[in-house]
Amino acid sequence: MQRAADLFRAGSKVVGVVPTMGYFHEGHLSLVRLAKQRSDVVITTIFVNPTQFAPHEDFSRYPRDLERDARLAESAGSDILFVPSVEEMYEVPYQTYVEVGGLTSVLEGKARPDHFRGVTTVVAKIFNITKPHVAVFGQKDAQQAAVIRQMTKDMNFDLKIIIAPIVREADGLAMSSRNVYLSPDERKQSVALSASLRRAEAMIAAGERRSLVITGEVMQMIGAQPSAMIDYVSISQNSTLEEVSELRSGMTVLVSLAVRFGPTRLIDNTVVEVR
Amino acid sequence: MQRAADLFRAGSKVVGVVPTMGYFHEGHLSLVRLAKQRSDVVITTIFVNPTQFAPHEDFSRYPRDLERDARLAESAGSDILFVPSVEEMYEVPYQTYVEVGGLTSVLEGKARPDHFRGVTTVVAKIFNITKPHVAVFGQKDAQQAAVIRQMTKDMNFDLKIIIAPIVREADGLAMSSRNVYLSPDERKQSVALSASLRRAEAMIAAGERRSLVITGEVMQMIGAQPSAMIDYVSISQNSTLEEVSELRSGMTVLVSLAVRFGPTRLIDNTVVEVR
Repeated sequence: MQRAADLFRAGSKVVGVVPTMGYFHEGHLSLVRLAKQRSDVVITTIFVNPTQFAPHEDFSRYPRDLERDARLAESAGSDILFVPSVEEMYEVPYQTYVEVGGLTSVLEGKARPDHFRGVTTVVAKIFNITKPHVAVFGQKDAQQAAVIRQMTKDMNFDLKIIIAPIVREADGLAMSSRNVYLSPDERKQSVALSASLRRAEAMIAAGERRSLVITGEVMQMIGAQPSAMIDYVSISQNSTLEEVSELRSGMTVLVSLAVRFGPTRLIDNTVVEVR
Repeated sequence: MQRAADLFRAGSKVVGVVPTMGYFHEGHLSLVRLAKQRSDVVITTIFVNPTQFAPHEDFSRYPRDLERDARLAESAGSDILFVPSVEEMYEVPYQTYVEVGGLTSVLEGKARPDHFRGVTTVVAKIFNITKPHVAVFGQKDAQQAAVIRQMTKDMNFDLKIIIAPIVREADGLAMSSRNVYLSPDERKQSVALSASLRRAEAMIAAGERRSLVITGEVMQMIGAQPSAMIDYVSISQNSTLEEVSELRSGMTVLVSLAVRFGPTRLIDNTVVEVR
């Protein structure tokens, strides 16, 4: 892969990378399409990264379908599919981790300790392996996007991070490889996540400035679903992820949430400019 | 620096980097000369890296002489001198660290917690900034060499690490920027460090296999110096840095030591093939 990347770069090709864990849905494919717009050669990586899963999480049962993924990636414009094994990526004895402080101590990082350490480590490795000019990630993992931006800047990776908007099902549910875990009933209830975020946007647009009032409404809408267990609902500054208690005009805030339906954990978010 | 590195690489030049903290002596210049043999363009970096010093250590008084360094580097064959500021390297809010486990928990890592985290972080940054094909480090920092090798492999940095042999003063003292801290009397006593390592080599060559007997002799020779305070004397496997209690034929061992003379801390080592 490094030799191929060298050849692309020597041929003045702009190299784009889309790091993924596979099991593609329209969200992933939108990243590949965006990468194709911004680069000459798109490398899509598929790697279900064990270091970003906690022992009790769904690493082993995470959905995989390489043949279908290969077909979909190519149809979306991907030129190279890079699918390393765990043994190749973490050659024993593996000892090195890249860790971002600060940003990773809240929200997902609080709920999933060591998760972002796994993410930043594997993304740094993928950057070194694919040598991209641009790398595309999705806004659904809003905190991941912020953490990767910070890591890229701090580590002087010479590339541009592009964040693509969330892609949703017709009823609003944010696309996720984990949606396949939902029972038909849970799938119906899960619409409350995006619906509650639309409600938060409407409240902010209507002038509500108290975070607790907004998150309270969001929690009520989600809590009305019998199977939903809320991990967090948060309003933070979009750039620093610092909690905001009172919205002010000119702020850009991230309203984000994580909700469990049985063993399935879903996240969603919206970025709102406060007028 | 990244644009210059891109141009060198696009022109098929082999890029070598020599990361240093400056205040050059013959040891540094030997690294530059070796880099010049292995590459077309040699980038020498000078950066007294605050994150590898503990608060009580000598960061602020670490010796600096940029004009002399620039002259010496050029005379040794360096093409580019890269001298970033602390503010450029750790732009606020800086949050990302690269950390190697295992190897860093012994010897220098034990004596200087967080030291290697600072080293691997800044070296990873320098790799991303200078985009080298080869990077040259000195064997005097034997554990640093092992840690950087591990980090380079684990992080998939696409470059070759070259370790250059220790350069010594006529009387055997390993060259170090910190030698200038020694009083004339301490300078005389410091010869015991290299002399004791030669003695260890002789003992091993003569068939001694008990580590404690060898380190005991080394400690006695150094302890005979009135100002010397021993931090550690160790015999470990050269590749893993695991302590060895009994030498066996075919082993490659690292005999390493750290000794303080007043506030000045010196290190030295030798690698021995056990016959």
